[in-house]
Amino acid sequence: MNLITLIDFTGTFVFAISGMLIAIDKKFDLFGVIILGVVTAIGGGTLRDVLIGSTPVSWMQNETYFYIILSGLPICYFFNTSIHSLRKGIFLFDTLGIGLFTILGLKKTLEFGLSPSIAITMGIVSAVFGGVIRDVLANEIPLIFRKEIYAFACLFGAIVYLATRLILPEPIAMLISILSVILIRILSIKRNWTLAFHPH
Amino acid sequence: MNLITLIDFTGTFVFAISGMLIAIDKKFDLFGVIILGVVTAIGGGTLRDVLIGSTPVSWMQNETYFYIILSGLPICYFFNTSIHSLRKGIFLFDTLGIGLFTILGLKKTLEFGLSPSIAITMGIVSAVFGGVIRDVLANEIPLIFRKEIYAFACLFGAIVYLATRLILPEPIAMLISILSVILIRILSIKRNWTLAFHPH
Amino acid sequence: MNLITLIDFTGTFVFAISGMLIAIDKKFDLFGVIILGVVTAIGGGTLRDVLIGSTPVSWMQNETYFYIILSGLPICYFFNTSIHSLRKGIFLFDTLGIGLFTILGLKKTLEFGLSPSIAITMGIVSAVFGGVIRDVLANEIPLIFRKEIYAFACLFGAIVYLATRLILPEPIAMLISILSVILIRILSIKRNWTLAFHPH
Repeated sequence: MNLITLIDFTGTFVFAISGMLIAIDKKFDLFGVIILGVVTAIGGGTLRDVLIGSTPVSWMQNETYFYIILSGLPICYFFNTSIHSLRKGIFLFDTLGIGLFTILGLKKTLEFGLSPSIAITMGIVSAVFGGVIRDVLANEIPLIFRKEIYAFACLFGAIVYLATRLILPEPIAMLISILSVILIRILSIKRNWTLAFHPH
Repeated sequence: MNLITLIDFTGTFVFAISGMLIAIDKKFDLFGVIILGVVTAIGGGTLRDVLIGSTPVSWMQNETYFYIILSGLPICYFFNTSIHSLRKGIFLFDTLGIGLFTILGLKKTLEFGLSPSIAITMGIVSAVFGGVIRDVLANEIPLIFRKEIYAFACLFGAIVYLATRLILPEPIAMLISILSVILIRILSIKRNWTLAFHPH
Repeated sequence: MNLITLIDFTGTFVFAISGMLIAIDKKFDLFGVIILGVVTAIGGGTLRDVLIGSTPVSWMQNETYFYIILSGLPICYFFNTSIHSLRKGIFLFDTLGIGLFTILGLKKTLEFGLSPSIAITMGIVSAVFGGVIRDVLANEIPLIFRKEIYAFACLFGAIVYLATRLILPEPIAMLISILSVILIRILSIKRNWTLAFHPH
């Protein structure tokens, strides 16, 4: 298992936990908790695959994703309270996850022969739409429509990747672009950046 | 018309009615009532088809589904009040419907060369996601995330089918597995089983 | 650029504005405003493409749509208040847009070898589901489920198109059917037609 797979699995796991915690909060039953975990973890990549026409969608080819998501269930059961105090750790994995999901989504879209700007869009979709579907199913306005620089960090990382891979080897370009996502997200929180839109 | 088609059409009809009744309750207009009926009846199978890559989706090949769904409209119009007192009959058809939708969805997914666990998942998706989309469009938290053993009955029936068809003829395996779904659902209601998830 | 493209682009632009205005109303941030604009403008056609199996979906082939949608952003920023007083102009473009989206969606579905009644359905889906997804993401009950003769105007125009193109040249049939959509919608508002559904 190489480093990319490791981060991919970690991202999936963290996204699943984030869905399950919301489901628990809303008093969903066991099935609802699992569904929200699954949808959050794979929703973005699934939407990307459906839109670019890569079906059967990717998680159908590899059941490991399922076991990873389900492994979040006992974690949420036994450590529900402690997880909330682990916010910093989760934040890091989550940011790693969206960084990687962005770049992987972008690469896959380019491989389908689509243009760089569509690839950037699909990278962002891969990273953020799991959370959007999660919030819709939980009957909430999607968090990312109102809070912090989340999608913008993905956009920035995607552009950095397209630029750096022209002059640097692939793995270095990936590393730099994922680090850019993390950097933008941390900076945006430390400095309290927002993208509030207040029309005249 | 064989028995499977008959149950399939009955399931479609009952699902359509369940969507229309919610739309009437929410004071949707004629168009809203039709849309909610359609989406509830075909939403689960449509999502399955899109995810496994079976497009154009199945109801586009056979317009009978449409006429069956639309026939629910006069029923809802004239018997709106009586339907509510027919809950037992609806419950039976609905349970027959999810049982059959689960097995049909599972079989179709296997025919696409996907693994048994993906097929089980797609069987459950076929049976329950029509209701999930219905509730999202009606701006409610999906019922099945909080109430009774619904998806679990589908899961149980799907596993029974995969096991029994190894040793029994196809029609017998289908019959036994659909009966299992009904059995689990009736038992769960009689004995008040729940899958409440209360973390530490 | 021919007339069809011009109306298509105009429709896209007006739909994007309608999504952005709702996002601003709900205090979404810049990213949320863009997403809601995009989803409203291309959601219906995207759903149609996914259901009939035309992937990668159409806007991935032509980036002009993106630039048109994004150009709505400064308009919403600088003229947010004035737009509300321009309701009549918007209404006209919006009605032109749904008329054209209906006919274009219908034609594309027929080209995929699907039946006329499926093509009519996909025409309506193309025209109205962008607004449905917009309202779901904004956590509202979709407007078109409760208000005015919107989808019905599309249905009427679609039938007119299928009938007239049998006896008239294509461009004339398109023109007449789009005008029918506009006519029905204006009549329905002037005469206060509704499709309220009040069961016994």
